[in-house]
Amino acid sequence: MSKITVSTAHPFDQALVLTPVTVTAHEHGRESTRHWQGQTPPAYGNMVGPFGGITAAQALQAVLSHPERLGEPVSLTVNFAAALADGAFRVEARPVRTNRSTQHWVVVVSQTDGDGDGVDSVVLTATAVTAARRATWSAADAIMPAVPAPASIARASMAKRVAWVHRYDMRPCAGEIPAEWNGAEADSLTQLWMRDDPPRPLDFPSLTAMADVFYPRVWRRRALMTPVGTVSMTVYFHATAAELTATGEGYLLGQARAQSFFNGFFDQSAELWNEAGQLLATTHQIVYFKA
Amino acid sequence: MSKITVSTAHPFDQALVLTPVTVTAHEHGRESTRHWQGQTPPAYGNMVGPFGGITAAQALQAVLSHPERLGEPVSLTVNFAAALADGAFRVEARPVRTNRSTQHWVVVVSQTDGDGDGVDSVVLTATAVTAARRATWSAADAIMPAVPAPASIARASMAKRVAWVHRYDMRPCAGEIPAEWNGAEADSLTQLWMRDDPPRPLDFPSLTAMADVFYPRVWRRRALMTPVGTVSMTVYFHATAAELTATGEGYLLGQARAQSFFNGFFDQSAELWNEAGQLLATTHQIVYFKA
Repeated sequence: MSKITVSTAHPFDQALVLTPVTVTAHEHGRESTRHWQGQTPPAYGNMVGPFGGITAAQALQAVLSHPERLGEPVSLTVNFAAALADGAFRVEARPVRTNRSTQHWVVVVSQTDGDGDGVDSVVLTATAVTAARRATWSAADAIMPAVPAPASIARASMAKRVAWVHRYDMRPCAGEIPAEWNGAEADSLTQLWMRDDPPRPLDFPSLTAMADVFYPRVWRRRALMTPVGTVSMTVYFHATAAELTATGEGYLLGQARAQSFFNGFFDQSAELWNEAGQLLATTHQIVYFKA
Repeated sequence: MSKITVSTAHPFDQALVLTPVTVTAHEHGRESTRHWQGQTPPAYGNMVGPFGGITAAQALQAVLSHPERLGEPVSLTVNFAAALADGAFRVEARPVRTNRSTQHWVVVVSQTDGDGDGVDSVVLTATAVTAARRATWSAADAIMPAVPAPASIARASMAKRVAWVHRYDMRPCAGEIPAEWNGAEADSLTQLWMRDDPPRPLDFPSLTAMADVFYPRVWRRRALMTPVGTVSMTVYFHATAAELTATGEGYLLGQARAQSFFNGFFDQSAELWNEAGQLLATTHQIVYFKA
């Protein structure tokens, strides 16, 4: 008699499951590369492959899972080299330099491609910095804009043709996805409240994923839905685990805008605050667009 | 009779000289890692090791020198893992993924440290994206602020205790380095005109270096000179070689500010325009500070 196990874990936590594969020791045993297997989560599917934010979160999870990790994330840069194929992937994380209070990481995600040679292809590279932070003089100069409370805003009813948007409760304050794709140029600003659906306590991987929630700025700017793909995303963390725990299942206010659209690539800069107005992360990305 | 050769090359071009060392072929010969030797340039010396901007430029130069390179830089992230010791370093650049119009790079800079085991230590990691760009609909939303022309502004006469500041003609428009270190809090904004000294036609490496010219935001914000060190810097290029050539030896206007100072790290976001008002690059970094 077979036993059927139904996971009741949150889909985000299911996505973060990485299965250890091997350990590569390096010269003098000072550091090791850990290899895991992960799965692209259907619950976070996008038009082609998974939502980039979930892949970025999985890459960070490899760093967080490494037994030699020092401190908490300060910086993460993820480069999307190719769309992931649905299914298994390998992720390796290596601390390339450990200092007294900071540590530098290189992460590579790869998949066996379909060319039959059996050699893995790189689909993502990432670098991260973790640090044992100490309490210091602090000041947040990026002030949360005045917007209505999330409970007073209707949840977005965007065309949900992709799975991942169901995983977020998004409540737009400004700069919604265009209702008409009529080519009417506008600014590139979007402000929205967001949280996991179902709600889930905030942590570094989920904050990372939420840094990629904004729909493409070029769609807003031009009111034209053209093919896009993020090529590189950076997240700077301005919070420790204590601030994330205090944020809990509350909403984050996200604000995103572009500064340049130039010959096939645009940038996006965004900020994420919790409901108490604490700036938790700033994030930047550069995105390919077809025009 | 020995022959004495005095290089008349620009100090920036001298810094960009990388001597090929070896080539590592990879499985199936689809890509190769190139290894070079470079030198930390005394002309760009900082308090400890070289100016970070020149090291970032040298890392990018490795990508630009690689015979398998596709297109021009779109994105560069440099992680400063340790201060470089004055002298030689090794740099390796590998195209980890080549697509039809984009290419993903991993760069590692290493030095033999003083612990006597003869094993290189990583001092810098970088990732880059290059792309064969095509002319598309373009728009720059980050507009150059109205400031006086460079010729009408006196050159900064800051205390030049480090070599690298002599390599730039800087003309501050706003947010100069504090005249008094009295702890008087202010905003974190700086605007300045800058160009190489002596003048040199702009290219991707020099644009990269200029992205790191701003003095630390925490010094401006607090009027306190505390120890700092950039841990990660990202540059997004919003120009092709044609725009850089057109900029020539002209000044760039740089504008930088911070959004968060939190428990030992602050961020900096900056823009760089040429005198014609073209946005050439946006750049972000996260910086350790002691307080």
